[in-house]
Amino acid sequence: MLHFVNDYSECAHEEILKKIAEINYEKINGYGSDHYCDSAKEKIRKACDCPAADVYFVTGGTQTNQLVIDTMLMPYEGVVAADTGHVSVHEAGAIEYTGHKVLTVPGKDGKMCAADLKKLLKIFYADGNHEHMVFPGMVYISHPTEYGTLYTRAELQALRTVCDNYKLPLYLDGARLSYGLTADGTDVTMKDIAELTDVFYIGGTKCGALFGEAIVFTKNNTPAHFITRVKQHGALLAKGWLLGVQFDVLFTDGLYERIGRNAIDTAEMLKKALTEKGYRFLLTSPTNQILIILENARMEELAEKVAFSFWETIDDTHTAIRFCTSWATKKEDVAALIEIL
Amino acid sequence: MLHFVNDYSECAHEEILKKIAEINYEKINGYGSDHYCDSAKEKIRKACDCPAADVYFVTGGTQTNQLVIDTMLMPYEGVVAADTGHVSVHEAGAIEYTGHKVLTVPGKDGKMCAADLKKLLKIFYADGNHEHMVFPGMVYISHPTEYGTLYTRAELQALRTVCDNYKLPLYLDGARLSYGLTADGTDVTMKDIAELTDVFYIGGTKCGALFGEAIVFTKNNTPAHFITRVKQHGALLAKGWLLGVQFDVLFTDGLYERIGRNAIDTAEMLKKALTEKGYRFLLTSPTNQILIILENARMEELAEKVAFSFWETIDDTHTAIRFCTSWATKKEDVAALIEIL
Amino acid sequence: MLHFVNDYSECAHEEILKKIAEINYEKINGYGSDHYCDSAKEKIRKACDCPAADVYFVTGGTQTNQLVIDTMLMPYEGVVAADTGHVSVHEAGAIEYTGHKVLTVPGKDGKMCAADLKKLLKIFYADGNHEHMVFPGMVYISHPTEYGTLYTRAELQALRTVCDNYKLPLYLDGARLSYGLTADGTDVTMKDIAELTDVFYIGGTKCGALFGEAIVFTKNNTPAHFITRVKQHGALLAKGWLLGVQFDVLFTDGLYERIGRNAIDTAEMLKKALTEKGYRFLLTSPTNQILIILENARMEELAEKVAFSFWETIDDTHTAIRFCTSWATKKEDVAALIEIL
Amino acid sequence: MLHFVNDYSECAHEEILKKIAEINYEKINGYGSDHYCDSAKEKIRKACDCPAADVYFVTGGTQTNQLVIDTMLMPYEGVVAADTGHVSVHEAGAIEYTGHKVLTVPGKDGKMCAADLKKLLKIFYADGNHEHMVFPGMVYISHPTEYGTLYTRAELQALRTVCDNYKLPLYLDGARLSYGLTADGTDVTMKDIAELTDVFYIGGTKCGALFGEAIVFTKNNTPAHFITRVKQHGALLAKGWLLGVQFDVLFTDGLYERIGRNAIDTAEMLKKALTEKGYRFLLTSPTNQILIILENARMEELAEKVAFSFWETIDDTHTAIRFCTSWATKKEDVAALIEIL
Repeated sequence: MLHFVNDYSECAHEEILKKIAEINYEKINGYGSDHYCDSAKEKIRKACDCPAADVYFVTGGTQTNQLVIDTMLMPYEGVVAADTGHVSVHEAGAIEYTGHKVLTVPGKDGKMCAADLKKLLKIFYADGNHEHMVFPGMVYISHPTEYGTLYTRAELQALRTVCDNYKLPLYLDGARLSYGLTADGTDVTMKDIAELTDVFYIGGTKCGALFGEAIVFTKNNTPAHFITRVKQHGALLAKGWLLGVQFDVLFTDGLYERIGRNAIDTAEMLKKALTEKGYRFLLTSPTNQILIILENARMEELAEKVAFSFWETIDDTHTAIRFCTSWATKKEDVAALIEIL
Repeated sequence: MLHFVNDYSECAHEEILKKIAEINYEKINGYGSDHYCDSAKEKIRKACDCPAADVYFVTGGTQTNQLVIDTMLMPYEGVVAADTGHVSVHEAGAIEYTGHKVLTVPGKDGKMCAADLKKLLKIFYADGNHEHMVFPGMVYISHPTEYGTLYTRAELQALRTVCDNYKLPLYLDGARLSYGLTADGTDVTMKDIAELTDVFYIGGTKCGALFGEAIVFTKNNTPAHFITRVKQHGALLAKGWLLGVQFDVLFTDGLYERIGRNAIDTAEMLKKALTEKGYRFLLTSPTNQILIILENARMEELAEKVAFSFWETIDDTHTAIRFCTSWATKKEDVAALIEIL
Repeated sequence: MLHFVNDYSECAHEEILKKIAEINYEKINGYGSDHYCDSAKEKIRKACDCPAADVYFVTGGTQTNQLVIDTMLMPYEGVVAADTGHVSVHEAGAIEYTGHKVLTVPGKDGKMCAADLKKLLKIFYADGNHEHMVFPGMVYISHPTEYGTLYTRAELQALRTVCDNYKLPLYLDGARLSYGLTADGTDVTMKDIAELTDVFYIGGTKCGALFGEAIVFTKNNTPAHFITRVKQHGALLAKGWLLGVQFDVLFTDGLYERIGRNAIDTAEMLKKALTEKGYRFLLTSPTNQILIILENARMEELAEKVAFSFWETIDDTHTAIRFCTSWATKKEDVAALIEIL
Repeated sequence: MLHFVNDYSECAHEEILKKIAEINYEKINGYGSDHYCDSAKEKIRKACDCPAADVYFVTGGTQTNQLVIDTMLMPYEGVVAADTGHVSVHEAGAIEYTGHKVLTVPGKDGKMCAADLKKLLKIFYADGNHEHMVFPGMVYISHPTEYGTLYTRAELQALRTVCDNYKLPLYLDGARLSYGLTADGTDVTMKDIAELTDVFYIGGTKCGALFGEAIVFTKNNTPAHFITRVKQHGALLAKGWLLGVQFDVLFTDGLYERIGRNAIDTAEMLKKALTEKGYRFLLTSPTNQILIILENARMEELAEKVAFSFWETIDDTHTAIRFCTSWATKKEDVAALIEIL
């Protein structure tokens, strides 16, 4: 059985496991106050070309979104997101659980467009009654998006301009950032992201780590007593160095890029074959998530040989499915999949 | 200056003030455990023809919505509402503040249609990933809606049927219930509401009381230790009898209907004149809120003589405004307004 | 049956009811943006001799405590209170409901002593692990306390000094402030309170109003978008002027003092008689709450003729009970009670 | 430098790391729906002799406490704990963050005694006003406690009886359970714990795992939609099998006991030497935490050669410190420490 279900279906890149085994008996300070975390933070600051960046490590993506949004918003504020955003639909209400509304704009292939954001903000401030409404307090985008699409530098800049005009922080969810940074044709670098956002996170879980995400506050804007708030959320890992050491490895010798490169190369190989074979795409994704539309009969046939994700119902006889490559995808498996297709 | 801004611009119906003055020196038990509350509850049970109804009084509408929704939902559940619903937009995130998401369906003139509700529920349960999503746990409607429109009995029945199929409680916000019950042509009675919903509230603040709303649990379904939860929300009035005595008066000798009747009669008088004069309505409302579209220049001219509410921007040169009548509106004032129009 | 149960057992002082009746048909702006609120605020600023004070009106005491504490604390902070404080025990967890811990020091006849506060703060900051603990973020005291006792000016000053040293706001719950200000022998004035605290509230519900409390922020320290947060808590009264007009009356012609005076005079009359008759006091209270210890048999006998409050069990054969006077207590009733005693 | 600071200062037992490396490229389903989790659950059910037990894995201890307490309590309920309990003081308000009060009884060497629990419950239910108070909804104990002490089977049984009488669930925090189960002289087994509690957790983080705790619901009492609530708390690990595989290893061939055994043996060796050398103990702990009182000068001298934890200030010249052994402590290091002592 071939497996293209997800990019978090294997443990971790070998270099990470090797490093953990190496330091197994070292006695290390808890809660992130250790030299592995320090080293990883320094490497991330360099990768961002942002010496002032303040970096924290936590365990998972929903946890990160909940923490960042809750700690950066005032209680009377909500976060603006695309209606397809992860925080809007797939986090079991983790944002609302902390008291904040998710205000939505229509997503376009997973992206928020600056004009839609501006419209929402204009309507809000034009409403004489807006003291009785949730204040837009932050903008959330994902890059790559939940659909695998990417912002251009110009699009990010346009969002940034709206955020500046309304004094809103811009937050970028980089759960799959590795695959975004290495996609063919992207003009967005980690440095751009550090410059254009107020806070973002570098995904580890879906990009070759056992688990873990690195939150980067880029503008001397870390919420007060952030460690206490992480603890209060139940998100402070006792053995914090496990997160630090993984990101230290990911940001050594370009591993984070190598991981992305493999996923993109294998995805491109698959996309090319799908195009040649005349498959119909749900949308064009430049990253490691490939969404195609199949007749249901064909889908069921395929499911006997390949594991993939159900994406959405198109109509009574068609379904969109997803193939996902990752840091761990092997070219021979892609070749085998192409054969079947 | 004529005044058609709102239905909560005056203190209270005279009979209410008179009664409070009468009992001023009576020594009464606090927190709603008094004979005035008991009497009002009994009268409401009769008006609903629902002997099992459990009735509680609180101070305001947003407070009521927050309390009912928070206490009836499980923490992993959200409330489904029209995107124009009061809980969706005009309560400053009071629902999210208690941890619950407001899930929306498109409002049609303020109403939720059963087909849209059914669609949202079907999509949710069809999604293999719905354990990672907010569960729809309750349905919220308002009657009259925020646009002054009313459900028919058949429409309520259709929503009820969907709720039954998905085992969801149906909650009706009756902030302006008096005006809904007495509107010309409505086929929905208080008894219907008690029968078709699991919980609803009878508005006092906008219907002639100083303040206060009566929450009615109709199906032996009062949340456990409800009084403690009211207290925990900061919503338990020490002099609870002030709420009881007002509802006791409102449900004596048909006062609640008389109050509605006056608002409807004056609204109909105004609507008739507006129609005759060729004014353009934003939508057709059978209750005490009248929404018309004016050229901006005309609107500004009018604003010099009449106080009304801004409703929404239609385009660069047109605006929708609202005239609102109430229990306190005088026919001579409507006549004067017609004169100006 | 004589009635000494509470100070919120009657509706309101006649002047208040009279005023509400007078303005009944006036058309007034909602949500507190009206001239009655403005006038009341100005009178309160004068009574406090604090021109910069920012004043808001809400409905009840627990609501006030929840609002003030929640909006003034950061999410990682708790409020320090005496273990007998209202927020510690009798608000059904309203403070915790908003996410904040109540940190306690041992109450001494209901009061917090500066040394105990200092000790708690020293221990907290000395603990190398305090990032894993709730930060003390505010100090809550009540004046009069729940036991009817009062702080001296020197005691308040001592608490203020500790608060200054630790940069903590001091919050005073004045649910029964009228009775505290007019107690014999007190050296604490409203001006002192405005000067020594960062925020306090002037109780209306227990001091002659139908309902309502006035929150006074004294140091240009109103939380951002306070009205929105009041709304989010479900605590924004539509007919806000009902609160304004009551405080306007209470602060006209010394009514708030007259109300206090009556309660104190009648309480002193009763205390004198109790002392002469050799009754045993639980503690010495200079205000309108009188706590005495009775043999249970005597208590039951008394209960046939007088309504009073159970306070606490002393031992198997003795119970502490409370007599409470108020703005509405009549001297002839006190005389009748003394007769029975 | 010798290191006796904590039991979570090293990565993980070698067998765990080995297993993770072995399965590195296996493609596994996310979110805990995998065969490693299934296998671990089955082994835990056997170890508890509780075939009906429902087991879930999460990442850390505070997260576990927050989840269990929040999901098992009604919103109007609080958890009863010793005032020294982890949830009372060292979780940054994680319990209050979810809206629940921690109600405290005085801890005795870290333990809650049944008589104190009963007293709190009796007072609560005897109070005529308890509808205005937080309801005790659950009892929290830790075993070993934060002081390293252990309950006897009889003490647990006594708490159970009180819980039964008041229909309260009993929750046991087993962050260091391995060291409790293997302590010399304990008469409490895992089976006893499963029988006497409603829910408990088996600590991994402090007992040889990289991270992770196993929550065991023992009485068919898992909260509804528990996975959704774990997600809502931001606590659902994408690669859930990482938790499963660790507990699978810990519960294979008695590893969990072997880990405990090493910590107890090394601790006993140290305690014996300390006793012989006449050191003063803060209290008698049968587990891996050893608390002794030193003169400050002696403590500083010692700190040059050994890393240990500050525990608490005893007086101006004395301090209590903690030595902690673990699964990773080597006998030669204990010998070296004894030499220094």
